[in-house]
Amino acid sequence: MAQKLDDSTRDEHLAPLMRAGWEMVEGRDAIKKTFVFGDFTEAFAFMTGTALWAEKWDHHPEWSNVYKTVEVTLTTHDVGGLSELDIKLASKMDNLA
Amino acid sequence: MAQKLDDSTRDEHLAPLMRAGWEMVEGRDAIKKTFVFGDFTEAFAFMTGTALWAEKWDHHPEWSNVYKTVEVTLTTHDVGGLSELDIKLASKMDNLA
Repeated sequence: MAQKLDDSTRDEHLAPLMRAGWEMVEGRDAIKKTFVFGDFTEAFAFMTGTALWAEKWDHHPEWSNVYKTVEVTLTTHDVGGLSELDIKLASKMDNLA
Repeated sequence: MAQKLDDSTRDEHLAPLMRAGWEMVEGRDAIKKTFVFGDFTEAFAFMTGTALWAEKWDHHPEWSNVYKTVEVTLTTHDVGGLSELDIKLASKMDNLA
């Protein structure tokens, strides 16, 4: 079961993601990032790679795609905010992208 | 090159899609539909199938996914509105879903 990030480790977890282009979503305990690829095929390949990990970890992004752009929001509905699963999935997406 | 649907054939093309749950997007010459599946795997399988046709036809949806739900908007940017490509892709998505 995922646990909400606690105050003591939160910044430590989030800082590297913020440096990599993730931002807090206004009004939600969630992070977002916009990935831009060369074309649709590259964007969708990224989504496919992400989907396999998301399903494996049973933790899924909220995301949208328009041609070569993928906008991602991550949060953990079960805990009402960010958990380590979001940190893990965000890092994985950065590696895949 | 895609051509904008002309007034004479527009209703004929759109009527079957409206019956299948597609709606006009307010303020845009575009259609939208929300597809709901059993789980994420089914939703993403639908997206993958659609992606292959979209790339083959070089005509891509605007879409978002949250777990088992996929929201789709179709329009043809090159012509500034709906074209036969949107009709074709909408029908294909209904078949895949």
